[in-house]
Amino acid sequence: MIKFTLKNKSRKARTGILELKHGIVETPTFMTVGTYGSVKSLANSDLLECEAQIILCNAYHLMLRPEHDVVLKAGGLHKFMNWSKPILTDSGGYQVFSLSRQTRVSRNGVEFKSPLNGNKIFMTPEKSIETQINLGSDIMMIFDECTPYTATRDEVKKSMELSLYWAELSKKANNTTMPLFGIVQGGMHNDLREISLNELTKHNFDGYALGGLSVGEPSDIRNDIVEHIGCKLPEGKPRYLMGVGKPIDIIYAVREGIDMFDCVIPTRNARNGQLFTNLGNLNIRNKKYESDFTPIDKTCPCFTCKNYSRAYIRHLDRCNDILAGRLMSIHNVYFYQEFMRKIRLSIQENTLDALIENIEQNYIHE
Amino acid sequence: MIKFTLKNKSRKARTGILELKHGIVETPTFMTVGTYGSVKSLANSDLLECEAQIILCNAYHLMLRPEHDVVLKAGGLHKFMNWSKPILTDSGGYQVFSLSRQTRVSRNGVEFKSPLNGNKIFMTPEKSIETQINLGSDIMMIFDECTPYTATRDEVKKSMELSLYWAELSKKANNTTMPLFGIVQGGMHNDLREISLNELTKHNFDGYALGGLSVGEPSDIRNDIVEHIGCKLPEGKPRYLMGVGKPIDIIYAVREGIDMFDCVIPTRNARNGQLFTNLGNLNIRNKKYESDFTPIDKTCPCFTCKNYSRAYIRHLDRCNDILAGRLMSIHNVYFYQEFMRKIRLSIQENTLDALIENIEQNYIHE
Repeated sequence: MIKFTLKNKSRKARTGILELKHGIVETPTFMTVGTYGSVKSLANSDLLECEAQIILCNAYHLMLRPEHDVVLKAGGLHKFMNWSKPILTDSGGYQVFSLSRQTRVSRNGVEFKSPLNGNKIFMTPEKSIETQINLGSDIMMIFDECTPYTATRDEVKKSMELSLYWAELSKKANNTTMPLFGIVQGGMHNDLREISLNELTKHNFDGYALGGLSVGEPSDIRNDIVEHIGCKLPEGKPRYLMGVGKPIDIIYAVREGIDMFDCVIPTRNARNGQLFTNLGNLNIRNKKYESDFTPIDKTCPCFTCKNYSRAYIRHLDRCNDILAGRLMSIHNVYFYQEFMRKIRLSIQENTLDALIENIEQNYIHE
Repeated sequence: MIKFTLKNKSRKARTGILELKHGIVETPTFMTVGTYGSVKSLANSDLLECEAQIILCNAYHLMLRPEHDVVLKAGGLHKFMNWSKPILTDSGGYQVFSLSRQTRVSRNGVEFKSPLNGNKIFMTPEKSIETQINLGSDIMMIFDECTPYTATRDEVKKSMELSLYWAELSKKANNTTMPLFGIVQGGMHNDLREISLNELTKHNFDGYALGGLSVGEPSDIRNDIVEHIGCKLPEGKPRYLMGVGKPIDIIYAVREGIDMFDCVIPTRNARNGQLFTNLGNLNIRNKKYESDFTPIDKTCPCFTCKNYSRAYIRHLDRCNDILAGRLMSIHNVYFYQEFMRKIRLSIQENTLDALIENIEQNYIHE
């Protein structure tokens, strides 16, 4: 049910083709986040126009809402949201720890209160996998525990070991041929990450992710971890850096051999008026765009840039017209897809370093 | 600059073709409201897909925001909002009285405080027309005064006379060949409305509107007024009933010979989950739609109904995803355009009464 073919290599960086049930994904790829079974403000046709090949949805959120097996009754998430291309589902591990109240971890799972209605929920690896199977995911993730950046080495070690146990339970719970990725934990400790990786590979997962990053650590510490462990992930399987990130962080990780990324930055920033361009970021709320009748990015062929000016989008944003959020989301989502295309091309043409230099210059003041 | 050709008549009802600077409008027509130079949540391409032929924007709002002649610098409203079809601009009279604080009316105009920043503004017929000229409107409206439903006959009479004076000033202020419509006032008094109409026609406006309705009166009183005065508006000019309304109110007015309508109902209701269908209204927030995987209206070919189910739209609405507002707006805007097409066809085929009966049955419980 998963086929991953490496195409080009440029030192540690690589391009590949990931064949999934609902279609083909070119790697390195960026997955736009559609937490609740929708990329906020965007219709399926918008995502297709933005050239999105795969999106990420959250089993945690979709377990809480819609209730009563609605997605199952709809015939799965693809049918429910009318998205025919691949979907990766996150297991909910990260969300349990970042969004829930009163979490109580035991060896079998974690009890928490639903942030929506306060109901007590007991989440287990088995339940997470069952949810992801019912969603009809193209790639499922094991259920894991995450530790904050401030956790002690001892806490991280214990948590990593629990995550390994849950990885085993997740694997066992997958009574289908649907692809399941393992998640390497170990916080900011390279040796713990190596132990985690070694144990995980015994289960022969369909791909391997680096989890427990983007939890508050400085980006140079994260980059060091990725540099150390990235290329140690099995060569023939997809490598996924979870929750990252800004263009510069993505391209550094690509250099270390990472194939897959996801992050809320393009969509969340868009809704706050923060836009990516080939000459760096801009904030549409800045008064200097009041009478600027040029597009967000003159070189961008997205729907928004073909049709609307900075001045008009700024006006919509000031009038709280939700069209503003959509137009800006379309632009940022397209920008990220176009950015990944450039990365793939640069690996093919052995010009990744030049692209990195270009990004470093344009985003230096971020 | 305006050409109005009557096509079919069925008793008092009529179809026609209105030729404007930015295109042709088939009447009877419904103008979707785009107050601030945008139909909330909808892009130009959405409006075109909904088959909108003309939209309405508000000179009052666009005078307040964007500031600093931004629209003028953009080359007019059509360019600013990237809408190439006709735009009718309301003069701001109705809004001054419904939205502003501390209004002080004098013979020359009205002073009020901006609801956005509290700045004092003195609005005159001349300023309204200048604003509408700068917007590049296809049809401008005279600046008038509106009275509430509760006004005494004396107040209404005085206000109607002031509006007549302002109509004259508006006409004089229009130093272009751009079309300008007069607005009949006179509250709920047929004799006052006749005086207003008789005086207005002396100025030979390009079309005539019924204003000062939808100000809190019961719909049967409004319908009586329309029945009395509607067919007295000049036969060869477009007749416009301002701020109306629900499908049933529109079709009753069409029966009396009205050609043009505008109302926020389709778009405002959409954003609140209230949807029009050929079998009556539905509220998407109703729990019974939780697992309803049919479209909003099975017979509707709009983008929303072709792509999404009631269950999914309800889910988006509950998750506060702004996509919900857009999808529902698309449906309601399309519904109204389709409704007007059916009305035009029924006039052509002399079946308006049957269509009225059908609407009365489906919307009886409203």
